[in-house]
Amino acid sequence: MAHAKAAASARYAISLDVGGTLTKVAVVDRVGRIVQRLQAPSAHDIAREDVPERVVQIVHDMLQAASLTVEQVAGVCVGIPGVIDSRTDFIVSCPNLTNWEGMPLAQQVQAKLGLPTFLEKDANEAALGEHWVGAGRGVDDLICFTIGTGIGTGLILRGELYRGSTGGAGETGHIIVDKDGPICNCGNWGCLEALASARAITHKARAFVELGEPSVMLAMSDGDVQAISAETVFKAAKAGDELAERVLAEALEYLGVGIAGIVNAFNPEMVILGGGVAAAGEQLLAPVRRIVHRRARRLLAEHVQIVLADLGSDAGVIGGAYLVFKAQEKEP
Amino acid sequence: MAHAKAAASARYAISLDVGGTLTKVAVVDRVGRIVQRLQAPSAHDIAREDVPERVVQIVHDMLQAASLTVEQVAGVCVGIPGVIDSRTDFIVSCPNLTNWEGMPLAQQVQAKLGLPTFLEKDANEAALGEHWVGAGRGVDDLICFTIGTGIGTGLILRGELYRGSTGGAGETGHIIVDKDGPICNCGNWGCLEALASARAITHKARAFVELGEPSVMLAMSDGDVQAISAETVFKAAKAGDELAERVLAEALEYLGVGIAGIVNAFNPEMVILGGGVAAAGEQLLAPVRRIVHRRARRLLAEHVQIVLADLGSDAGVIGGAYLVFKAQEKEP
Repeated sequence: MAHAKAAASARYAISLDVGGTLTKVAVVDRVGRIVQRLQAPSAHDIAREDVPERVVQIVHDMLQAASLTVEQVAGVCVGIPGVIDSRTDFIVSCPNLTNWEGMPLAQQVQAKLGLPTFLEKDANEAALGEHWVGAGRGVDDLICFTIGTGIGTGLILRGELYRGSTGGAGETGHIIVDKDGPICNCGNWGCLEALASARAITHKARAFVELGEPSVMLAMSDGDVQAISAETVFKAAKAGDELAERVLAEALEYLGVGIAGIVNAFNPEMVILGGGVAAAGEQLLAPVRRIVHRRARRLLAEHVQIVLADLGSDAGVIGGAYLVFKAQEKEP
Repeated sequence: MAHAKAAASARYAISLDVGGTLTKVAVVDRVGRIVQRLQAPSAHDIAREDVPERVVQIVHDMLQAASLTVEQVAGVCVGIPGVIDSRTDFIVSCPNLTNWEGMPLAQQVQAKLGLPTFLEKDANEAALGEHWVGAGRGVDDLICFTIGTGIGTGLILRGELYRGSTGGAGETGHIIVDKDGPICNCGNWGCLEALASARAITHKARAFVELGEPSVMLAMSDGDVQAISAETVFKAAKAGDELAERVLAEALEYLGVGIAGIVNAFNPEMVILGGGVAAAGEQLLAPVRRIVHRRARRLLAEHVQIVLADLGSDAGVIGGAYLVFKAQEKEP
């Protein structure tokens, strides 16, 4: 796509991280600092043809909120929870926002805004953010996991984002760790995501509690089984709850085994654990490190650093801004 | 490593593919044709300090056999069944030739020969060979599997061999496809190699025959269970033998599931199946294609071509020659 040209003096990027429900918007400066924030509902309830205009509206709202003129902005990046065909820049899959599918969103927004506009998979943006100003600074080969409701990954190989042949690389939430395992959201079964995501952990804990297994999780969620979350499971396990410990141990064993396979395939220098589940900190990190160390090839396991993400839920918007500034640098 | 300089007119490469027992040696020209062949026993029975001299001797033997002068040779490449630390060029692991471990072989051979000398993992060489003049010509993102006694992989990403951060990338024979699966040669358990390699297929078939399960495999191997090979299993399955079909179906399901995971992680344009097991042709290809299509993400599965290798057991020596000529091109 031919990109609109930004003023060389433009010092800010506007970055959108579109989630299933909420869109996080940020103005990011050239050194990766967020200088203004905004939140908007994600446009999941509108017609496909209205989506680009909604994005434009959000950008205008942000310009106003931050008292910025268009000339001060180097560009816009829209991060989505879906797959973009890197050959055509069309959104080819976006399960939680199906009305965003089948359009070249960046081109449409750019035509309306007159600003260079980029579109990127959210897990890729998180990897770019962590590589730019987070846990992965200066690391040429890293894999950044975003572990939340699902499991996504961004791959930085030889210092650059690797998108694969059509933009779909990094779907490591769907490597198969149990060929006869449970059904995954992707329609397949036995995927890492079906066994180790927040959704998987929650699902399993709820099922056992519903079956009547004794656990403090029921009290922690005021007797409402459906209110048990992955966070509940981590907290209960920390408090010594046997069921929570068992559910978590199994999920983290699968996560460790999956990461060990990824380490064997890519030989990264660093694996970054981010996303909502990473808020569990050491409770996640320690078992994953132990299992990867035991299950990956010795030479590769000894070399890889496994660390928590630095930027929390800001990694996406920061990574999006990185793409904007990188493109600006390349301009003549 | 500073490489010796080859005469610009030098039109041949000498390439060694060192196996556990035999070393295959070839003179390869600039368009990837083998113009002379030789075989030598692999130096697994000599002292570590004598290994470089043995390699030099093999090169001299080849020069004589091909009536070539040193000036006509652009360089030498030695392919080994082991892992090379790409930061130091030391062989850090070579399980079948432990006396080759712990030395910077390329530097030592080069010092003695006065010719640019390279060292590469055999599975990487196979990928380079197939990418240069084999099934993967013109394909920028491909994964080349070598399926034999073990399972190795070479990764071509963005048109170049990807070695990872320390030279160990592509150990995809050791992604874990069954976390509680059988012990692998690497010391771990549940690896793809432990479930889908020729060794795994052979091991399983022999075990069932030994347990008394009726099968034509016993007669095919003249009553000697230990003579049953992976080839026997493929042949017996083709002839409708139930046990052979069952053993093969399970192994190929694991192989397909492992490849599906790799497709999800890398989004390659092509997956090449090479190595001894690939001699089974359609009998391998058809089920692997079917399983990958079913188990990888739809968008990625639809895009990836799964094909048999073109160069057979010559892929390694041809890929080694590619490294020699590529380095020659880069010289001023």
